Amino acid sequence: MAGTNSERQLLREGPVIILVEPQMGENIGMVARAMANFGLAELRLINPRDGWPNDKAQAAASKADHVIEGTKVYETLEQAVADLNFVYATTARQRDGFKPVRSPVAAAETLRAKFRAGEGTGILFGRERWGLNNEEVALADEIVTFPVNPAFASLNIAQAVLLMSYEWMKSGMEDVSAVPFQAMSQTQSTKEQLFGLYDQLEEALEARNYFHPPAKKPKMVDNLRAVLSRRAFTEQEISVLRGVISSLDRFSRKYPRGSRPPVDAKEQSEDDSSAE
Amino acid sequence: MAGTNSERQLLREGPVIILVEPQMGENIGMVARAMANFGLAELRLINPRDGWPNDKAQAAASKADHVIEGTKVYETLEQAVADLNFVYATTARQRDGFKPVRSPVAAAETLRAKFRAGEGTGILFGRERWGLNNEEVALADEIVTFPVNPAFASLNIAQAVLLMSYEWMKSGMEDVSAVPFQAMSQTQSTKEQLFGLYDQLEEALEARNYFHPPAKKPKMVDNLRAVLSRRAFTEQEISVLRGVISSLDRFSRKYPRGSRPPVDAKEQSEDDSSAE
Repeated sequence: MAGTNSERQLLREGPVIILVEPQMGENIGMVARAMANFGLAELRLINPRDGWPNDKAQAAASKADHVIEGTKVYETLEQAVADLNFVYATTARQRDGFKPVRSPVAAAETLRAKFRAGEGTGILFGRERWGLNNEEVALADEIVTFPVNPAFASLNIAQAVLLMSYEWMKSGMEDVSAVPFQAMSQTQSTKEQLFGLYDQLEEALEARNYFHPPAKKPKMVDNLRAVLSRRAFTEQEISVLRGVISSLDRFSRKYPRGSRPPVDAKEQSEDDSSAE
Repeated sequence: MAGTNSERQLLREGPVIILVEPQMGENIGMVARAMANFGLAELRLINPRDGWPNDKAQAAASKADHVIEGTKVYETLEQAVADLNFVYATTARQRDGFKPVRSPVAAAETLRAKFRAGEGTGILFGRERWGLNNEEVALADEIVTFPVNPAFASLNIAQAVLLMSYEWMKSGMEDVSAVPFQAMSQTQSTKEQLFGLYDQLEEALEARNYFHPPAKKPKMVDNLRAVLSRRAFTEQEISVLRGVISSLDRFSRKYPRGSRPPVDAKEQSEDDSSAE
């Protein structure tokens, strides 16, 4: 499939992104890339200032060729939305009007519901310099606006498309905290494994007279165990720690404290990570 | 305050954004802008390729001068995170390791909780070409990754910063569906007002023999009322609609159907929007 070296399936669904009189080809390209990142594919342009196709757009799209190649150009916004059922207008500033104003999260949920119901949907983005005019906003069903820092509110058009595309993708996830890959799987240690660590460490410390004076030993043990028990170590981690303690407990230094190891030094502890 | 013409307070809080060996000044500038959009202010760079300060970064920052001016440069990542308590590493690909992997939503919630507890936090972003190496990831507490289209997963560094900054801002909002401004306030109509609309319209239609044959009138009335009742009209909308019906009902055409109004035509209905 064009625009990707991956064998994985390209997602091609979701709202049409509609840019009204975009000025910079670079921005159109970055919009295409942002769309591709989050599985959107259909881009429509109303009267792009520098015509279409546009080399700068192609270059900035960074391999989102399938979006660029499928881009359609229209003379009027009415034509561009004619086949759609539901359209959002993005705007950074308040409009006098009665259209509902939604956050990106709420808008994405609405778009997802309409997509699942088989409706054609779109999101309008205005010109780089001054956005959408009131007549253009009036052609939309609802307004979407971004929760930006009020003192620094100007979002670049590609950034605005990125955020809506991102929220669109999240709206299709059952769990927005889901991630595409996980840490390597580890098993939480049993208490017995943890107690084994306590025993080993406390015995090694006892042999060095760490618990001194003896009257304080119970409190010192409590404190030490508190440090270790808070960590919720896994089996693998307990094993690593026991290897470390073993090494410190059994072997004497090969080179003085604070100096660098000799180049050919092979630490004995490397063979000892499986603990005693 | 530098970097904005607004009198509103600049937000200056939240995680430090740390770019490891960034290459393009334009990207650094776009990162600064994205940060400013969502209320982040503290940017740190490890060995930026083209040195610092950087004119291209300044230009691309688009008035986020307070971020650019406050940017600090470090020689090593260890130095850049030395004063922080908790650090995320961003990465697009799976690492062999045991670090927890979080979504942007979950990571932002964690960062917000740590911020509220007074901890210093940061987010690491890697080089444009190949991200962070394993040793750099190892310096972080947890990993954050983005829910992108698997077939087109490469996020630009400024886009990645934008998404994390956006989720940071959202994590501070009580309601992620909140919006900074609302549609003009309207009052939902009472049933009496709706029934007034029914009566007016049905009377005007009856006078034109719309309900024909008479046996079908009850069903036709049902259908008509279903169309109107589904809309949940406000008081103001009922008033507009009654003005429209009034105009259609009372006045005859000034010019033929399908033709354009004469230039000096002033429609009588303009004075009639307050209904009968």
